[in-house]
Amino acid sequence: MTRVSRFGEPAEDELPDDIRAIYEANLKKVGFVPNVFRAYARRPEHFRAFMAYHDVLMKGPSNLTRAEREAIVVAVSSENRCQYCMTAHGAALRILGKDPILAEQIANNWRTAELTPRLRAILTFASRVNEPGFAASDEEIAALHAQGFSDDDVWDIAAIAAFFGFSNRMAGLMDMRPNPEFYGMGR
Amino acid sequence: MTRVSRFGEPAEDELPDDIRAIYEANLKKVGFVPNVFRAYARRPEHFRAFMAYHDVLMKGPSNLTRAEREAIVVAVSSENRCQYCMTAHGAALRILGKDPILAEQIANNWRTAELTPRLRAILTFASRVNEPGFAASDEEIAALHAQGFSDDDVWDIAAIAAFFGFSNRMAGLMDMRPNPEFYGMGR
Amino acid sequence: MTRVSRFGEPAEDELPDDIRAIYEANLKKVGFVPNVFRAYARRPEHFRAFMAYHDVLMKGPSNLTRAEREAIVVAVSSENRCQYCMTAHGAALRILGKDPILAEQIANNWRTAELTPRLRAILTFASRVNEPGFAASDEEIAALHAQGFSDDDVWDIAAIAAFFGFSNRMAGLMDMRPNPEFYGMGR
Amino acid sequence: MTRVSRFGEPAEDELPDDIRAIYEANLKKVGFVPNVFRAYARRPEHFRAFMAYHDVLMKGPSNLTRAEREAIVVAVSSENRCQYCMTAHGAALRILGKDPILAEQIANNWRTAELTPRLRAILTFASRVNEPGFAASDEEIAALHAQGFSDDDVWDIAAIAAFFGFSNRMAGLMDMRPNPEFYGMGR
Amino acid sequence: MTRVSRFGEPAEDELPDDIRAIYEANLKKVGFVPNVFRAYARRPEHFRAFMAYHDVLMKGPSNLTRAEREAIVVAVSSENRCQYCMTAHGAALRILGKDPILAEQIANNWRTAELTPRLRAILTFASRVNEPGFAASDEEIAALHAQGFSDDDVWDIAAIAAFFGFSNRMAGLMDMRPNPEFYGMGR
Amino acid sequence: MTRVSRFGEPAEDELPDDIRAIYEANLKKVGFVPNVFRAYARRPEHFRAFMAYHDVLMKGPSNLTRAEREAIVVAVSSENRCQYCMTAHGAALRILGKDPILAEQIANNWRTAELTPRLRAILTFASRVNEPGFAASDEEIAALHAQGFSDDDVWDIAAIAAFFGFSNRMAGLMDMRPNPEFYGMGR
Repeated sequence: MTRVSRFGEPAEDELPDDIRAIYEANLKKVGFVPNVFRAYARRPEHFRAFMAYHDVLMKGPSNLTRAEREAIVVAVSSENRCQYCMTAHGAALRILGKDPILAEQIANNWRTAELTPRLRAILTFASRVNEPGFAASDEEIAALHAQGFSDDDVWDIAAIAAFFGFSNRMAGLMDMRPNPEFYGMGR
Repeated sequence: MTRVSRFGEPAEDELPDDIRAIYEANLKKVGFVPNVFRAYARRPEHFRAFMAYHDVLMKGPSNLTRAEREAIVVAVSSENRCQYCMTAHGAALRILGKDPILAEQIANNWRTAELTPRLRAILTFASRVNEPGFAASDEEIAALHAQGFSDDDVWDIAAIAAFFGFSNRMAGLMDMRPNPEFYGMGR
Repeated sequence: MTRVSRFGEPAEDELPDDIRAIYEANLKKVGFVPNVFRAYARRPEHFRAFMAYHDVLMKGPSNLTRAEREAIVVAVSSENRCQYCMTAHGAALRILGKDPILAEQIANNWRTAELTPRLRAILTFASRVNEPGFAASDEEIAALHAQGFSDDDVWDIAAIAAFFGFSNRMAGLMDMRPNPEFYGMGR
Repeated sequence: MTRVSRFGEPAEDELPDDIRAIYEANLKKVGFVPNVFRAYARRPEHFRAFMAYHDVLMKGPSNLTRAEREAIVVAVSSENRCQYCMTAHGAALRILGKDPILAEQIANNWRTAELTPRLRAILTFASRVNEPGFAASDEEIAALHAQGFSDDDVWDIAAIAAFFGFSNRMAGLMDMRPNPEFYGMGR
Repeated sequence: MTRVSRFGEPAEDELPDDIRAIYEANLKKVGFVPNVFRAYARRPEHFRAFMAYHDVLMKGPSNLTRAEREAIVVAVSSENRCQYCMTAHGAALRILGKDPILAEQIANNWRTAELTPRLRAILTFASRVNEPGFAASDEEIAALHAQGFSDDDVWDIAAIAAFFGFSNRMAGLMDMRPNPEFYGMGR
Repeated sequence: MTRVSRFGEPAEDELPDDIRAIYEANLKKVGFVPNVFRAYARRPEHFRAFMAYHDVLMKGPSNLTRAEREAIVVAVSSENRCQYCMTAHGAALRILGKDPILAEQIANNWRTAELTPRLRAILTFASRVNEPGFAASDEEIAALHAQGFSDDDVWDIAAIAAFFGFSNRMAGLMDMRPNPEFYGMGR
């Protein structure tokens, strides 16, 4: 069996109760425990901080739909060539976006995907944030305002893009492997 | 007066109690509220998630000293040219590391700073993690083991480097300005 | 309906007989005419030269299996972010390689895919050829010999990688769109 | 004597008749057999496919003059630093373009060569095509139309640029050496 | 004691008289001999040529103030990560510019420093000159004229930026170490 | 007539006597005044500093032959795509090196030129120096020592490479045009 992470995973009977509960909720909902949980469980304090921030960004209040947020994750993870995130969030985008062909186009190359103008603006800025040494100019923020995005929308796009740049690097550190179940989901 | 962030900051009487308490603790301890708190306070849920994760990485249990952790932040923030983090964490490194000349060398260019072999190994790997598309090979992890770092040490170096790549981009998004007090601290 | 290419396609009754025969063979074999044929049919002399060279490389005698050749195409097309080739040759690799999960891993990032040592050596060299300004050193050719590849094997890897760098750019020129049928094939 | 290619060349008495005829035509016309023929002759099927495509692009019907086509080859080969193509096509450009100083300027750096607006537009687009990950936007195609280029002209510029990106890599693979005769031709 | 340069320095009694006089002038004026003099003194002819050109650029007649010239040096040396020049010229900029916070901002990242429009224009062009393969277009020179810079102003910006690109590389060659006195000057 | 430099040149009767003497010496020796003199003559103090340093590097005492020094200039100027220096120093290298084919190979791509091991070591290090952010490691200096180069030899290679990186940028600033006489010299 393929490894979960190069650093292994804790035995199930060593899991803290709150993490065990998350395992069980995943088993009930999707039938398996995504390897990101199993890999982070090695360090419970890191697990909790990562998942809390993830949930603020991906499930918290925002004008961005959940599919738009997943599209950001897939586009950035593709630019960063993150094997785990492209696979796991590719599945999420296929399901939440209800357009598996578009999801695959975004995974291949968001620039040549058949995007709405709104999603193109979102991914264009997400990709800017992903650049090394990113610092926004007043002009590019004004351009986003002119396209209808509020300050908080801009914040949300950037925070998701930048947080997954962090997450992509952690997956690259661990050689985190995608669960095989992800590949067929939402096709 | 220079702006805190291009997105402004909440009025003090609108602050949630937990965030107000952090402001007050900072005023008592260092005499001012670092702008990173004032900028994130606009989004309390983001503030809490960011600070919780920050504290796990920078104050939680680890074999890395607090000065080593700040050295990672300064080296990565310098590679990413983050105005806020170079200034604020530059001050922290001067104080915690007790060697202001070395701190400035690391801010200028960690590669040509006069580092111990241990700190050179730490910053070399932190810089690798900061590269776009980072994915560690088994060989480079083995090389770190051979230099005396455990799996958790490697995790800690990478997590700090990658988290501040995220933080640098958020500061670049907001045009977060360093408080003037930072420049003279620890000289 | 999505366009085939930004330059359009000829009416079917204007097709030369040899190209019409290729359309019909495709309809019979896979049920549709891949858009690469429809796009190149605008310039019959280019169509013929492209397909002749393609067939020498992808179907001619070689020690590389057809799945290995498709893996080269997918890896290079992914590095070049070619929407059409990742989709069309991704389908071919899933079918010929009989391992759709591995095919997706190669499309995501061949470097972190679970490759045999032989396929890793092939894709490592294909990626080298794809670099701008590629010129092989005697040392890297000797290293390939030491891994069991003959001069003609090395030629074949390089020729497929370089030819698809050309093909990727032609698809990028035309904004060649993948036929929707490709997405589900071989899953 | 300098090698033709690191993979050698076939003995003359092993050449297929069609390839031998090409050797003889070259001897008659320019007094020597360019090494590209001698290197490709090792693989007759590759030789035929390469030369057929080459002739469609460089000698077939097109609104681009033969000198303009050679200028594309020299500019792209210079960006790719291809020793063989810069030398052989540099000679061709000096002869066909009848301006050896301009030919050398293009070989040095087409951006600072003293070009007509038409040739500057052609080489600017050729250089774009040569970029890794090239995909044209509708805007840049429209800009070429506005400068007087038809869809087929744009195709021809791109096809020549991209094909020689392939050819440059094959020469880099083989360490193909320029015949010494090329250096003085057309000065 | 930290080395001056990896190539050492001449004994004081071997110094030519003109160089000894420069040592003494520095001791009188700033209390120490900057290591750039001690390192170059190994090659007196190089010392003289370097210092003569340096003085034309940094002290000769020009519409650029001495603080503006030092800002160019700090910005370019920061882009080139030159440990010696960031430290020595950082001190000079703090003193001549009389704004140590701004000086540190420029050392961190001139793009996000709080610059006047004039200094932003100067550093923007200096950074352009520092790019590999720099060649100015007529358009960018015209834009500088429109911002109020004469041909000689443009020459001065470029000459300082390019000369310190040379100087940065010489310091990088020698591993030239900053004198510890520089760190505290002008704070 | 093609311009000398975008900033023009002084009238001959305005030239200072020392610069006029250099013009006359050039006319006598090579039959024309290279445009680098005519362009720099606009700023006599810069002219003198530039030429003095140039002569220390290119004509002063050194273990490097004059042809080796010109090879460094051509290789670096080619990497920096400097139209003027490739042309003027290309002519110098053809004449001093007495091997016009090798000179052209170095101008095309020194990496694939047919170099002696000594010249390959020289140009490899010159190219390293030309990289942005160059700082030599102790290991690479030791490797040069092991190949027979002294500290002063290493200094000379680096100083020539870095000085011409400066000179290339000045030529790129001025759009300095090569005199047509250079193209045919030494063929």
